[in-house]
Amino acid sequence: MNEIYMDHVATNPLHPDVMDAMLPYFKEHFGNPLSLYESGIKAREGIEDARGKTAALINAKPSEIIFTASGAEANNFAIKGISFANQSKGKHIIVSKIEHHSILNSCRFLEKSGFAVTYLPVDKNGLIDPAVVEKAITKETILISIIHASPEIGTIEPIAEIGNIAKQKGIMFHTDAVASVGNIPVDTESLNVDLLSLAAHQFYGPKGAAALYLKGGTRIVPLIYGGIQEGGRRAGTENVPAIVGIGKAAELTKRDLQKRMDHVKALRNKLIDNTLKIENVFLTGHQEQRLPGHASFVVEYIEGESMLLLLAAKGVYAASGSACSSKALKSSPVLLSIGTPVNLAQGSVVFTIGEKTTEQNIDYINEIFPKTIKQLRDISPYSKGWGNMEDPTCTAKK
Amino acid sequence: MNEIYMDHVATNPLHPDVMDAMLPYFKEHFGNPLSLYESGIKAREGIEDARGKTAALINAKPSEIIFTASGAEANNFAIKGISFANQSKGKHIIVSKIEHHSILNSCRFLEKSGFAVTYLPVDKNGLIDPAVVEKAITKETILISIIHASPEIGTIEPIAEIGNIAKQKGIMFHTDAVASVGNIPVDTESLNVDLLSLAAHQFYGPKGAAALYLKGGTRIVPLIYGGIQEGGRRAGTENVPAIVGIGKAAELTKRDLQKRMDHVKALRNKLIDNTLKIENVFLTGHQEQRLPGHASFVVEYIEGESMLLLLAAKGVYAASGSACSSKALKSSPVLLSIGTPVNLAQGSVVFTIGEKTTEQNIDYINEIFPKTIKQLRDISPYSKGWGNMEDPTCTAKK
Repeated sequence: MNEIYMDHVATNPLHPDVMDAMLPYFKEHFGNPLSLYESGIKAREGIEDARGKTAALINAKPSEIIFTASGAEANNFAIKGISFANQSKGKHIIVSKIEHHSILNSCRFLEKSGFAVTYLPVDKNGLIDPAVVEKAITKETILISIIHASPEIGTIEPIAEIGNIAKQKGIMFHTDAVASVGNIPVDTESLNVDLLSLAAHQFYGPKGAAALYLKGGTRIVPLIYGGIQEGGRRAGTENVPAIVGIGKAAELTKRDLQKRMDHVKALRNKLIDNTLKIENVFLTGHQEQRLPGHASFVVEYIEGESMLLLLAAKGVYAASGSACSSKALKSSPVLLSIGTPVNLAQGSVVFTIGEKTTEQNIDYINEIFPKTIKQLRDISPYSKGWGNMEDPTCTAKK
Repeated sequence: MNEIYMDHVATNPLHPDVMDAMLPYFKEHFGNPLSLYESGIKAREGIEDARGKTAALINAKPSEIIFTASGAEANNFAIKGISFANQSKGKHIIVSKIEHHSILNSCRFLEKSGFAVTYLPVDKNGLIDPAVVEKAITKETILISIIHASPEIGTIEPIAEIGNIAKQKGIMFHTDAVASVGNIPVDTESLNVDLLSLAAHQFYGPKGAAALYLKGGTRIVPLIYGGIQEGGRRAGTENVPAIVGIGKAAELTKRDLQKRMDHVKALRNKLIDNTLKIENVFLTGHQEQRLPGHASFVVEYIEGESMLLLLAAKGVYAASGSACSSKALKSSPVLLSIGTPVNLAQGSVVFTIGEKTTEQNIDYINEIFPKTIKQLRDISPYSKGWGNMEDPTCTAKK
């Protein structure tokens, strides 16, 4: 069977050049980077080379890159670390309702420690209004964190404008750029951010390597205490091969980004145009201001998980924004935030395109997706008006 | 030049079988473990297989293993997670003075949040007296954390006895077993622990893979919030290849442990016996109750970093307990805790033996180490009584 991977927002295959760059660090350069002998010195040099390349991808200084093991760790580090470091100035944080759970749940943790958090709404396209951010600021506000691009609906937020407001008010500003870095140009200076999270596996780098950009001179409380790694800001023996891998992936991405963007955007447009011809299928997120390889839909009368399984049976590997697919078994808070009715939110499907996706792949999906929907609707009681769709499959498994 | 790696306590080369086990998870099984299609399902299966093998190494249930990215992360998670989860019961924690910085600095963080921490002394061999632990317990005590084996002086602590006391008093008990798991038998049941940290690169597994053992039914507050990975207790896209690697390394270790122990212990004894013949060189840590491959010394009139550099020039890669070698530039708190005078603590050198170390390697070290010491003493002003040795090299760099 033809296998078509359409879940690049979930993770990506490792670029072969990245694997080649990593291999020596599993073998001869295995030493602890803090040590004084050759294999440790080589490991240390590998890390610093990767730091430079990662910084270059986002127009930052090498000293502003702190390596972490995941985007989630970088997000937790940013939210908790800045809040704890600045709590004497105030205890108010502003985020959006469509942040990743690593942001939202870090905020809930802080609420238990006496912090107040404002969760800002978004419009029907998933956009946050900078004026709404500005209005939410109080004298107590110490941190604003807004996602750069939503992995679920693809919308790209007006980070530079929000960053400008934060800068003028002297408030720390973080953006979760895990879904954007590697997919669109990201420049920490023009975005006006103090902190930014990114993850290597989003741009053909390894799992286990991610980073927090922390603007020079910014104070932060560590999430992981211990040794003096990463300037004492993130302890633990460095995962040297993975760090070397993020550096190589960043280097390749900087070189190939425009080409990759042009490629996936053309395919995405073709997929969206065709899919929207199907009756009662709607695009989620912003039509233009979205990730170039991101096509997300809700399909009426259908349950997302069934759709994914049928698509997978036909060799197409997609995702569902209704977190049911990822076993959390609830309607997607992001889809509810943009006003999607609960029944429709259950019928979410997200296709994300990568550099190896071909036009033939898209043609195939354009051929089978309408058929798959018809097939499911034919057996769905909801499509015949037999009930509302507070997904029974999901709730039964709770 | 003959290269002899004698720093197995810092990190280890990857076992070739571990590398082989990991490779498919960089390539075909690259999918996100939360996804519903083949490459994700294979990744998920790889993780669960590794969980079983890791659990088996320490006589735990698979559900009691939470994968983390480093021993430091596991230690931070244990200390902060248990403290936050139990703060309504009390806010007192007991640790020893010779804990790893990931424990000590997590405690200092908690002290700023209103927790009280008792730092227990050790005797001249680095041993903690269980009776002293018992005396330190108050009505407010919610957590005791004692290191299983010191990476710096090799001493193995009476964990089972301390665990028994904790159990009788109904207090959570954690042990940092990063330096012991893989080097000696570790059984969570007979050790009476509720939590235990371990790291794969200590037993020929990959960097970036570690675990916290958390006894079934134990409540903990996550360190890294986000998705539902690891049962919602540790978020972030799983580093699948590294996790598969820790599983394979655990499997090999369970199989080979006795053989490895016999091998390194014989070599260690040979090294210690010879080294102690040198004038004014002393063993640190306990003579018998110590890690089988661990030989740690302090050498009078000598500065550890110089010794490491000269040894490295002769092809012998060792470490120095005087954290000067690892750039922290302070006398080792562990050596000071066992009563080593400051000047002597600066002359620390730690040799740690691995499964590939040969008798010829030890013969070579036994030949050159006394010469290296003589060489350094000949040029040292301290050996001629010209001053006390509050290491000027170190303090100058502060």
